[in-house]
Amino acid sequence: MNQAEIDTIIADMAVRARRAARHLAILDTATKNAILKRVAEQIRLQTARIQEENGKDLEEGRRKGLSGAMLDRLTLTDQGIDSMCDGLLEIIELPDPVGQVEQLRKRPNGLLVGRMRVPLGVIGMIYESRPNVTVDAAALCLKAGNSVILRGGSEALRSNLILADILRRAVADNGVEPDVVQVVPTVDRHAVLALLGQEDTVDLIIPRGGETLIRFVTQHSRIPVLKHYKGVCHIFVDRDADLDKATPIIVNSKVQRPGVCNALEGLLVHRSVAERYLPVICAELAAAGVRLLGCAKTVALCPQAMLTQDDQWGSEFLDLQLCIKVVESAAEAMDYIARYGSKHTESIITENYSTAQLFVSSVDASAVMVNASTRFNDGGQLGLGAEIGISTTKLHAYGPMGLEELTTRKFVVYGSGQVRS
Amino acid sequence: MNQAEIDTIIADMAVRARRAARHLAILDTATKNAILKRVAEQIRLQTARIQEENGKDLEEGRRKGLSGAMLDRLTLTDQGIDSMCDGLLEIIELPDPVGQVEQLRKRPNGLLVGRMRVPLGVIGMIYESRPNVTVDAAALCLKAGNSVILRGGSEALRSNLILADILRRAVADNGVEPDVVQVVPTVDRHAVLALLGQEDTVDLIIPRGGETLIRFVTQHSRIPVLKHYKGVCHIFVDRDADLDKATPIIVNSKVQRPGVCNALEGLLVHRSVAERYLPVICAELAAAGVRLLGCAKTVALCPQAMLTQDDQWGSEFLDLQLCIKVVESAAEAMDYIARYGSKHTESIITENYSTAQLFVSSVDASAVMVNASTRFNDGGQLGLGAEIGISTTKLHAYGPMGLEELTTRKFVVYGSGQVRS
Repeated sequence: MNQAEIDTIIADMAVRARRAARHLAILDTATKNAILKRVAEQIRLQTARIQEENGKDLEEGRRKGLSGAMLDRLTLTDQGIDSMCDGLLEIIELPDPVGQVEQLRKRPNGLLVGRMRVPLGVIGMIYESRPNVTVDAAALCLKAGNSVILRGGSEALRSNLILADILRRAVADNGVEPDVVQVVPTVDRHAVLALLGQEDTVDLIIPRGGETLIRFVTQHSRIPVLKHYKGVCHIFVDRDADLDKATPIIVNSKVQRPGVCNALEGLLVHRSVAERYLPVICAELAAAGVRLLGCAKTVALCPQAMLTQDDQWGSEFLDLQLCIKVVESAAEAMDYIARYGSKHTESIITENYSTAQLFVSSVDASAVMVNASTRFNDGGQLGLGAEIGISTTKLHAYGPMGLEELTTRKFVVYGSGQVRS
Repeated sequence: MNQAEIDTIIADMAVRARRAARHLAILDTATKNAILKRVAEQIRLQTARIQEENGKDLEEGRRKGLSGAMLDRLTLTDQGIDSMCDGLLEIIELPDPVGQVEQLRKRPNGLLVGRMRVPLGVIGMIYESRPNVTVDAAALCLKAGNSVILRGGSEALRSNLILADILRRAVADNGVEPDVVQVVPTVDRHAVLALLGQEDTVDLIIPRGGETLIRFVTQHSRIPVLKHYKGVCHIFVDRDADLDKATPIIVNSKVQRPGVCNALEGLLVHRSVAERYLPVICAELAAAGVRLLGCAKTVALCPQAMLTQDDQWGSEFLDLQLCIKVVESAAEAMDYIARYGSKHTESIITENYSTAQLFVSSVDASAVMVNASTRFNDGGQLGLGAEIGISTTKLHAYGPMGLEELTTRKFVVYGSGQVRS
């Protein structure tokens, strides 16, 4: 296919998605849930076929020399298939936000004015290798009443196409236009550019993957993009911290799953507890295999820590590695976070009421926590149910994005003949 | 100034706005209101000085041959000054959204999770001639805790600079960093481009003005833009309409203020009432000076109507002119609106419960109304208080944007030592 042909294909997909979205927007919850249930059933029934296609992707990936980590993410194991199906059942259980009317209030002239949750319309998902995202994202978009155009990693094309086939059949079997779910049928990168230019038909782009992918999408999109570049999360151990609480929280934040965006990357310790606490926590972290990079004061107190290089502060390691700094005050900790944080997750350990409230109000991040692990910044953990991603941009959604964040609100006005004077 | 100098000035303004925003974000409501009160007082005290500067803008405008309408919009009359001050007092009365915590709920593990309203950060306003927007927009941004960079029309520069001077002094007099309000000090259009490129420091751009301005801003911005291009609003007179209600609503929607975005531009009439009703409403509208453009059936029924040309359907006339079409059904009316509407305001006149509910759920517009004038799509009328503009894009805000729409929500998590298992 040449670029002009790709442009035509993508524009046509977007128009069909938009047309199908009009019907999906007013579809009843029972039918949407029936579709999701059917998808889960069919994925179970067709597991062998899915894994066969996935096997071809893996084979080609191996031939192309993909790294072990990439092949790992690409693989649809039995366990992965199970968790895809469990995810679908969870989404069925979530309340349908569409059509809910909030804040219905009477104006002095008798007009009843409310705000009705409505779908966004058409969503473009651009993501990397994991084929399970195809099903998760399509299910969330569909339950929120949105058509979705999926553009997964080129290495997962066969897996994505078979999953999309199952999704589309389940949609059609329930009497709904299958174009509510479409997978871009080519691995040509020009298709991404073409999709990012459909600003008249696509309402939102959600990229998921590494920072390079996200920067590429943001730079070329004429459509609003919800995303986060990275997660540089901090914990500040205050002067008034309960140090017994601090240790498990820090270890959990850093060690439980170091490769994800809500893992801890920077530890700030108030100078009045540094001498007492740093040797303790550094020994714990080192025992857990964490490589420690500290400021001069940290290094003086902890033999395990090496001196942090200037360009290492604020790094997203995504690995068992951590920067540690002694600060003079809560104010210095907040200044540090304002400078090096990525607006993702910031946590304070303190028993001091006023310091806790000041930290919560002042720190600009999608989730600000007191005495809790940064690992809780996640749609499921925060009570949203499944999430389609996390936003660290402030427009529309800030933090995990669940079903509600895949909708908007229009005004509804019930009158009885009112005119404006 | 050359382009490099302008780039430096704008980047510096943005950095200063960002820095000042950190303090404004946690400023108490009383101080924000004291600033707004002082602005109102100073505008009254310095009316002569303001009108003198405005006079210089007008003089230069006349020399440059600005149209009467443009000079009119540029003029700060005594009445205009009064309504600016009244607007400030209204904003003082509005509840401060910042810091409110919504949906604070307990998770099974004991975490308290809520969503706190926080400012967006730095907002760039780009607008045309009216200098009153300078004060309205600055006041709304400030009350919502945002720094604002204002870029008004070149023809209003002197008026805007004196108003900004009053705003900044009122800010400083209350012990707040004056860089929370800044006016771009040059009329060079390159300054707009420079502002639209500050994606690391500016969070949102709000353009207000004609479609050309808004398209220019959208095309060049790397920052999210909240806007509406135009308002092509319709009323559908259903088969089951109470025709006594229909007439005042249609006349009000079209005639009360035809030059604004929520004025009526298209009338759809169900065929089963067309014969009876079209002669009545056309006579009323013609008597009010409205030029009528109709489909063939309309023209056959109403001597006042001329045949609509194909390219006139869906026009935003902003004038005493109206397209009229007879439709076969409510479904055809909704299809027409999906094709020609601008997602601004759509209203149905009906006594039929099911038709009303279907119209409200199905029509995709920022405000959907039953038995009410389209002129009600306005922040004040819908109960938001003052508005900074109307959005017909669905991300972040859809419809009038008041104080709440100038904020976002971050997650706040109150723990007692929880870690993730």
